Amino acid sequence: MARRFSVSDYADGILSGNRVRLSQAITLVESTLPTDQELAQQVLDAVLPRAGRSVRVGITGVPGVGKSTFIEALGLHLVNEQGKQLAVLAVDPSSQRSGGSILGDKTRMNLLAAHPAAYIRPSPAGRSLGGVTRSTREAMLLCEAAGFDVIFVETVGVGQSETAVHGMVDFFLLLMLAGAGDELQGIKKGIMEMADAVTITKADGGNERAAKLARREYQNALHLFPLAPSGWNPLVTVSSAVTGQGVAEVWQVVEQYRAQTQQSGYFQRRRQEQNLHWLHETIRQALEARFYARPEVARHLAALEQQVKAGTKSAFGAAEELLGL
Amino acid sequence: MARRFSVSDYADGILSGNRVRLSQAITLVESTLPTDQELAQQVLDAVLPRAGRSVRVGITGVPGVGKSTFIEALGLHLVNEQGKQLAVLAVDPSSQRSGGSILGDKTRMNLLAAHPAAYIRPSPAGRSLGGVTRSTREAMLLCEAAGFDVIFVETVGVGQSETAVHGMVDFFLLLMLAGAGDELQGIKKGIMEMADAVTITKADGGNERAAKLARREYQNALHLFPLAPSGWNPLVTVSSAVTGQGVAEVWQVVEQYRAQTQQSGYFQRRRQEQNLHWLHETIRQALEARFYARPEVARHLAALEQQVKAGTKSAFGAAEELLGL
Repeated sequence: MARRFSVSDYADGILSGNRVRLSQAITLVESTLPTDQELAQQVLDAVLPRAGRSVRVGITGVPGVGKSTFIEALGLHLVNEQGKQLAVLAVDPSSQRSGGSILGDKTRMNLLAAHPAAYIRPSPAGRSLGGVTRSTREAMLLCEAAGFDVIFVETVGVGQSETAVHGMVDFFLLLMLAGAGDELQGIKKGIMEMADAVTITKADGGNERAAKLARREYQNALHLFPLAPSGWNPLVTVSSAVTGQGVAEVWQVVEQYRAQTQQSGYFQRRRQEQNLHWLHETIRQALEARFYARPEVARHLAALEQQVKAGTKSAFGAAEELLGL
Repeated sequence: MARRFSVSDYADGILSGNRVRLSQAITLVESTLPTDQELAQQVLDAVLPRAGRSVRVGITGVPGVGKSTFIEALGLHLVNEQGKQLAVLAVDPSSQRSGGSILGDKTRMNLLAAHPAAYIRPSPAGRSLGGVTRSTREAMLLCEAAGFDVIFVETVGVGQSETAVHGMVDFFLLLMLAGAGDELQGIKKGIMEMADAVTITKADGGNERAAKLARREYQNALHLFPLAPSGWNPLVTVSSAVTGQGVAEVWQVVEQYRAQTQQSGYFQRRRQEQNLHWLHETIRQALEARFYARPEVARHLAALEQQVKAGTKSAFGAAEELLGL
């Protein structure tokens, strides 16, 4: 087991911007050991008053959309042109299969990873979706306390992670390809309606016309959607990580969103709601984990699930039976 | 308290198509009394082998879209032209405020309510969303056992009920107005991506052109959405409950969907998944209800929620505290 420090060692290190201590604290929140989790909560509570001051941006898109190169281009714009400190986190429950994508993520973003104002932390490995989103959210709070101005939370666009990430960020950006056809985009239904902005990537090398056409189509489509509670009208842009065109514009859109929603009070209200949501979500996950781990429940679950699936027993009757065990 | 019968009295009555006994059984599933709930589960299990043979259609749209008149027109088409037995149920948690919309619903659909092949049952009153969706789903199963070929489940389009209803039906129909403007439609974000079909209502009295234009716009927009797991491409139609135009077409779309998804096996697979979903959903609701009803949890919840909302305590730390009580 890795070495553990005192609460104030972690907290002081994080608040003074010590990257090594930050990484060690994130390892702590990712740990499934009860003693680590207890320590992690104490560290979190100690630094929490200094968290919450960044802009949190969720970025999603399917493999092939050029997510890493786009994030690197936007990230370099932020650290080089905007003078921002940037942390990049990821929620990718599939990385548990490969045992973690730590090297993968860093080598995909060479220049950004090497930049002193950027901090890249890949998705924790070997945990459930609930576990991954929980520790990513806690890592985000630690990064904020460490002084990062902007947090990117990346997901892969094909699973359930997007809803979870949408519930922890201020702004949700969807990357799409032009002309790939609706069937080919591969993103999950419902993600499009979550987006605060869509950017059509790879608008270069003869692809510019198709990208602009796609932009218009998506902009028209999004106008038919019901307005979000934020009062914000989602924008569609085109961008190229290769030529750099449209990359700065994406950041302008985020800043515009922040200004508008901070003025209306939605920005702050939403964060409060998100905090409450995570409280109840954590309780739910714990209650379910305890319940399904009970030996008598585990013993009868599979058989009852079969009957319910086959329609020979009502879902409610089976639930009552399990709850009465 | 209303009179109660034996399990076989209810079951035999339902299976022989006795409407009075069906209504009494639905009252039983709507009851919050533990003895009623136990009896209700026995009745459900007794009739369950005869349930599951209908087509379940969720219908939603905001107030003003002409939902009742559309449902009545489509319903009359089904009972008069298609020889179907139709049950119309509703999920409207807001009806608890007015103490139930029983009279309201029936008088809104005079002709259909009076038709011998139709059965209209309004939303149960005075219960939570979870309670309303649970008893509506059970009422649906009872109606199927009573021999109804088609079940409509109506919602109001503005709340969280739609996701719940989407999880209990085979086909989800969204009613929209032409030219009302995106801001004015008032439906909740995310509902559009759930729709298997959209129909633009009130295409009459000079509104036909606008309706056809809206149809084309929405059809184009829906083509940009990712394909649903059903493999079905959502269709947009126009209709008028007044002239009857386009009403039969909506039913053709439902039948086309059913044929396609039954052939692919998706129809049956989805129902099995929905059954399983309701098992786990019921367990979740019960676990949460038990937890939050505990006096020591109730005593500390509000204060911790305040701290979490304000960002002075981490959501996870507060959850741990409550879970440890």
